[in-house]
Amino acid sequence: MSDAPANAAFTDRLRVVLISPRNPLNIGAAARAMSNFGFADLRVVNPYDVAFREAKSAVRAHYILERAQVHASVSEAIAGCSLVIGTTAVGHRDLHAPLYRLEAGAQLLREHLASAEAALLFGSEKFGLSNEDLSYCRWLLRIPARAEHGSMNLGQAVAISLYELIRDEARIQDRFPQPAAATAEDLERITGMMHEILDRSGYINERTSKSTELKLRRLVLRLGIPQVDAETWLGILRQVLWKLKQE
Amino acid sequence: MSDAPANAAFTDRLRVVLISPRNPLNIGAAARAMSNFGFADLRVVNPYDVAFREAKSAVRAHYILERAQVHASVSEAIAGCSLVIGTTAVGHRDLHAPLYRLEAGAQLLREHLASAEAALLFGSEKFGLSNEDLSYCRWLLRIPARAEHGSMNLGQAVAISLYELIRDEARIQDRFPQPAAATAEDLERITGMMHEILDRSGYINERTSKSTELKLRRLVLRLGIPQVDAETWLGILRQVLWKLKQE
Repeated sequence: MSDAPANAAFTDRLRVVLISPRNPLNIGAAARAMSNFGFADLRVVNPYDVAFREAKSAVRAHYILERAQVHASVSEAIAGCSLVIGTTAVGHRDLHAPLYRLEAGAQLLREHLASAEAALLFGSEKFGLSNEDLSYCRWLLRIPARAEHGSMNLGQAVAISLYELIRDEARIQDRFPQPAAATAEDLERITGMMHEILDRSGYINERTSKSTELKLRRLVLRLGIPQVDAETWLGILRQVLWKLKQE
Repeated sequence: MSDAPANAAFTDRLRVVLISPRNPLNIGAAARAMSNFGFADLRVVNPYDVAFREAKSAVRAHYILERAQVHASVSEAIAGCSLVIGTTAVGHRDLHAPLYRLEAGAQLLREHLASAEAALLFGSEKFGLSNEDLSYCRWLLRIPARAEHGSMNLGQAVAISLYELIRDEARIQDRFPQPAAATAEDLERITGMMHEILDRSGYINERTSKSTELKLRRLVLRLGIPQVDAETWLGILRQVLWKLKQE
């Protein structure tokens, strides 16, 4: 049971471009998130060499990292793409391109990926995308994090962006079927047995015995015992009753 | 401009519980993701002491980490919550609780958080939640990653789960307004100036001059020049025309 889209092309058409990443752990985390959600085309522009080597040589280095292409410039990394999108934290800079929240931008990007290639650019951990990087972008994507917080972790930003791309709105209704409830007869047997146990335990006052029975029935009903558990509860009560009868 | 929910209580009612985390970077990443999305109540159960100390003493240690409570057991960490949810990778284990995909589960969780406290449990990086941990969970949440991939990075799993909680479906329509298009007069001035430039450059054949004019008008129309850029384009063309007239 895989959740990867049936038509692999959708995910194959996206290029994830990391620009000047500095931290090997972040490069690895981005590759791992790509694999999680079924994306494979990772490009790295002008990485800090030591970091990239370190990421690739990590024990659990990923096949996505192994075949990641390294480019000297952004224009090289995006060649062949008909849509280039930048990611940005809070829009405090004077942005010259439309800015979409992730929910909306991912939908636009998915529509594009249905038939053509696109590149999604992530800036360095420290500085984000430069004005030059941004000048290649038709529009920008913003993950709706709190403005007060500042930047996001690079690996997390990649993971959340890709998750939103493969997120399936239709699955919201996809709730687990509620387990069947125990039948009225089972509930009545449970109520009856509890009544007997409580009677033997001295909980029940002879005068209010009838009202206690109603109270017990309502208590048991509110438990919402699943059918699958009814026998187990009956067994438990039977055992307690047996023990009480011994004394 | 903050994206935090107007009613902070929704996010305040969620407890993020990390069980036996081993990697200080993951603990830090979870705290950072919580801050990104406006959650503050972090609980750590039975952490690897060295890892937790290291995470707290990191240069950029987060206030959320500073005030995170450490518990010896799951039951201590979830005390006071009326809903406890576990997170799991692929459901290969014999699960005794309903399993929801994140899209559906987050909605259920949000509904609960509207009025009551809940805990979201994350297992250790290596083993996930134990069967004992799972026995406290009313239901389970699964991030829809590829089954082939196996587990997710802990920090990313926390980030994606919290993102889905604050994700705002209504914002999908929240697209950046398209910039106003240049007016017909501006387009006509641009077309006319291009025609004159091309004429002086020897591009235009006298015989087909009229059809070239129509072709140019359509070319310019398809550019979709925004109003805000019309003057710049006119200035550029004017300069080229001026230069051509010099020769």
